[in-house]
Order: sequence, then structure tokens, then C-alpha cells
Amino acid sequence: MGLKITILGNNSARPLLQRHPAAQVVYCNDEPFLIDCGEGTQVQMLRYRVKSWRINHIFISHLHGDHYLGLMGLLDTYALSDRQHPLHIYAPAPLQTIIQAHLSAVIPDATYPYPLIFHPTDNTEKKLLYEGNHLSIYSVPLVHNKIHCTGFVFEEKKAARKMRKDKIEEYQIPFILIDGIKKGNHFELPDGKIIPNEELTTDSRIPQKYAYCSDTAYTESLLPYLQNVDLLYHESTYLNDKIQQAQQRGHSTAEQAATIAQKANVKRLLLGHYSTSYYDLLPFLTEARPAFAQTYLSQEGATYDISQADWSEHEIKTEYFQPQCSKQD
Amino acid sequence: MGLKITILGNNSARPLLQRHPAAQVVYCNDEPFLIDCGEGTQVQMLRYRVKSWRINHIFISHLHGDHYLGLMGLLDTYALSDRQHPLHIYAPAPLQTIIQAHLSAVIPDATYPYPLIFHPTDNTEKKLLYEGNHLSIYSVPLVHNKIHCTGFVFEEKKAARKMRKDKIEEYQIPFILIDGIKKGNHFELPDGKIIPNEELTTDSRIPQKYAYCSDTAYTESLLPYLQNVDLLYHESTYLNDKIQQAQQRGHSTAEQAATIAQKANVKRLLLGHYSTSYYDLLPFLTEARPAFAQTYLSQEGATYDISQADWSEHEIKTEYFQPQCSKQD
Repeated sequence: MGLKITILGNNSARPLLQRHPAAQVVYCNDEPFLIDCGEGTQVQMLRYRVKSWRINHIFISHLHGDHYLGLMGLLDTYALSDRQHPLHIYAPAPLQTIIQAHLSAVIPDATYPYPLIFHPTDNTEKKLLYEGNHLSIYSVPLVHNKIHCTGFVFEEKKAARKMRKDKIEEYQIPFILIDGIKKGNHFELPDGKIIPNEELTTDSRIPQKYAYCSDTAYTESLLPYLQNVDLLYHESTYLNDKIQQAQQRGHSTAEQAATIAQKANVKRLLLGHYSTSYYDLLPFLTEARPAFAQTYLSQEGATYDISQADWSEHEIKTEYFQPQCSKQD
Repeated sequence: MGLKITILGNNSARPLLQRHPAAQVVYCNDEPFLIDCGEGTQVQMLRYRVKSWRINHIFISHLHGDHYLGLMGLLDTYALSDRQHPLHIYAPAPLQTIIQAHLSAVIPDATYPYPLIFHPTDNTEKKLLYEGNHLSIYSVPLVHNKIHCTGFVFEEKKAARKMRKDKIEEYQIPFILIDGIKKGNHFELPDGKIIPNEELTTDSRIPQKYAYCSDTAYTESLLPYLQNVDLLYHESTYLNDKIQQAQQRGHSTAEQAATIAQKANVKRLLLGHYSTSYYDLLPFLTEARPAFAQTYLSQEGATYDISQADWSEHEIKTEYFQPQCSKQD
């Protein structure tokens, strides 16, 4: 269990043949949550076997086209597939106008046949967007050239303690009491003796945290939100050779992303949102790792399992990471 | 020379892994014109080597998402690539609202850095949209469930007659007179003898016509616009097994498309806009050809040269035309 992230697209601005715009799926207990939805995302979901019909919550960081232009096609496909269950979208307010303009283009005041619940995001402070039994999801303000832009932080809730099956048998514990014991109760034997909870249960694992920060300039205002997260996805649109451009355009370099990761004491860092001006992406790793050793380059199609101790499969082999697109792309 | 058509996408409604939504490029004297722009079109243009920066005119038939959702990404890419020269868009009027909503989503009242000239289409009668030195392009009304929808007809202009080089030498014709002779003038020798134009020039080839009709129900109101066109692209969303569905949804079957082609006396018919409910597309050909022998199935990535007499390369081999997407797609 735990959180897993599948990357559907991690390219910046315009797409290339093998490099798609921003989109990723965060799985919590196998429930998928979609972050960003660049053009082509629904095809990427087919390609990487994402059960798109199980997505009930979509989070859009900001309204640059490379982060949302795949959304209307996905909403249309849901309608064509007779979706009935509600879909929640968390995004800057103008997206609601855009969706309505798309719907009304053929039929005035049209609506989707399924409930579409829009939640405008707030880019001024950390806000709770979603609360479920296992997970809370927050928006956090990013700094992207004064554009309304938020990151997202996924925080698992601590699961109930686990009942020891051998103790059920040993003490003949009635089924009806098990739920209370998982929540912390002791158990009283018929003769009055109290069996403490610590003997009857084991602790659940430590809840995991995942943070998505794209797009953003380097900003230490993020640090309080990112403390000790298990995995941070931080945009690294440029290398230090284009640090001026990064600053002007509200983006970060690989080294800057790694610096944030180091200062926030995260466990691992995933880089992404690569500029198309870079043909070879390996330099992102070589730039970032001196600042933060547990840096990985996000790869389209890969799934990152936070619970997995060994991430050697995600190490980049040089010959792999020259993208298949030709230079003129 | 002549007209050539490259298919970028010919799938209906939702995309599949190897089947992209509507888009095609019509080349006239190597100048590309884009018809429809479904999601993913700019990547398809990379894939099939379309020089997208040379496109100055984009024609959108109607505002179902599978025909236009790739447009905003393309307009954004033009801006990022520092496009300076004007771009003309011919489309139903609400598209202008959609484009503006997209632009204004991050910066109120933003505009593109290049001139974007919007021409709202008229779906009530045949209208001239574009007139150049070599080509006229018209919109024609389609019948698609009362939705504003137009097809497009490309009509080459008759080129000037060709000057015979041997005659220039034989009669020592001054260069300054050649243009006039190509337009029909005779040539007077110093001794007063008149050399007739028919001796000095050869006729240019017959101008070609291409018609794009998607999306549309079967309608004989199209016939006057399609008479004798060299190539007709007519949607065939369904086979006759779903003829009721075709009628309800404002679409055509393969046989209906072929019937239109036969009644309009076109030279060749290309089918496209296939429903995702069909895994194997060969039945579209077997249904259409009894009604119109010169029917071909449009294939994504293929280029159709109207001037080419032999189209055997476009014949479908059975093993090819089972699309690579899996059935659950």
C-alpha cells in the first residue's frame, strides 16, 4: 500500500514526439487522483493502463495550456462513456469559464450528464481541498510570475492499529469488539483481567506524504509545507545555464529544486517539467545530485512507489535518456 | 504539383492509442492548409513531418471537441516559437470566445504576439473563405444534428499556359513579353507575321478540386457542391449495422458516403472519422465499394496525391488494418 505516482507527462510548454505535457496520477490504496491534465493525457492514460473511469478528483495547478488542455477531451470522453458518478475538479476559477465555453459552443448552457463539482483554488495559503478516510489533500501557493498557481500535498492519515489474529484466538475476543481495539481499546477477560491494547495490536505504518510543486520559481516560502515529505516532485524546467531565464519565467533549475529538497529534509526528489530546449536530460541529474543525493529524473510511464526501499530501477542509464525525438523537434 | 492531403487523425469522438482525432493537411503548391485540429494534432504534425510554421490558414468544421481541442495548444506553440506572421482561423463564431477564455485565463485580455484573424463561418450556404493566386477555398453547409457545421471545398485556379522554351529560342521572343504570352497573347515577328498563342504555349493541367465533408449525416443537399471533385473525404462514422445511430447522431455510414460519391460523380472517395466501436476497419471498405468502386480508407499518416494515377499503395492489406490498440481501448 502507500502512495504511488505514475508519470503521464513531464515536459514543459510544448509537447515533443516522446515527451508529453504535465500530467500524473497519484494512487492511494489504488484510488487514482489526477494532477494536471496536459494535451494528450487521456491517450497517455490508455498507454500506461490508468483506469481513468476510477478518477473522481482532478487537480489543476494553473492555467498555462501545458497543464490543462487535455481536460476538456477527458470530460467529453467521460460523457460519451456514460459516466454517472461525480467528478471533482480543483483549479483556478477561470477554468470553470473555459469548460462552460467549450460545452456551450455547440449547445447553449449545456452541462455534462454526470455531476461536475468545481472547487476554485486559493493561491494565498495552504488549504485543505479533499478529506477522505485515508488521505487529506492540500493546495499550497507556488510562485510562478504572479500567475495563480498552486502545488498539491498529499498526506496519508494514520491507519488504525492492526489486530493480532493470534490474540483473537488466545483470548476468544468477540468480533464485535475488534474495531474498538483497533482504535485503541483494551480487552477485559471474564475474570476482570485487563489485556492492554499494546499486546493485542501492532502499529500501522507511518503515513506517507507526497508533494507536487510545478510550476514554480525557487522560493523558500514552500519549505514549511514540504518538511520531511517522503517524495517531492519539483519542477526543474532549466539547468543553471539558463538560470536567468528561469527567474524571468517563474521556473526553477535542477540545482534549485535540489536545494529546496535538501532544505525541506525530504526523503526523495523527482525532477520534471523539462524544457524542450534540452535534448539530453541526464545533465539535470548531474546538476541536482551534489545538492541532494536522493534525486531522480521522472520518466514518462514510470511508477514511483514511496514504500519501495530500493529505487535502483529508476536510475537513469545514459543511453536510455536521450529522448527519441529528433533535434529539430 | 496539384493537391495532396496528409491525414493526421481520422478517429471519431474519443482518441485511441493509434487513432487520433480529426485533423488533416491539404497541400497546394507545397503550401499547407490545416483542416480541423483535434487533440494531439501538433504532435501528429511532428510525427508526420508537417512544417507547422508554414500554416497560415486553419479551417475548423464544427466545435465538437474531437475537431478543435488541439487548436489552443498549437496557437500557444506558435507564440512560444516567436511566430510573427498572421494566422487566419475559419470556424464557428463561438471558437473566438473559447480562444479568448483560454488566453485570459492567466492574463486578462491577453492576445497572441502574432496577428490572429478570426473569420466566423456561415453554415447556411456555400461561401468563399479564402482566395489566393492558385486556390479558392469555400465552406459548404453540412447536416450534423442542427449543430453549426461546415465542410470545405478546395478549388485550384487554372494556371497560366506554359511557355514553350523551344519557341522562345526559335522566334527570339524577348523575356518581357513572356508573361503576356502565358496569359494568352500572340507574338508579332519583326516582319509583321503573327505567331498564334497555341503554337507558343501548352495548356496547363486541369485544376483539381478536393472536398472535406465531416461531420455530416447523409444529405443530398451536398451534391451540387461536390460535382466532379477529384477527391472527396466523407465521414463514415458507422457501418450499416448502426444506421439508426448514424441518423440519430448526425453521422453517415460507409455505404451512405459511397452513395454521395457516386451521385456527385467524384473521382475518388476517402472514408474517415471512424467510430471507436469498430476494432477492424476493413468492413468500411467492403461496405462502400459496391456503391462506389474508387473508395479508399483514409489511413493516419498517409499522403494522398490527387495527381497520382496509381493509388495501389493505398489499398488496405487485411493484416495492416487491424489497429494496434487493444480491444478494451
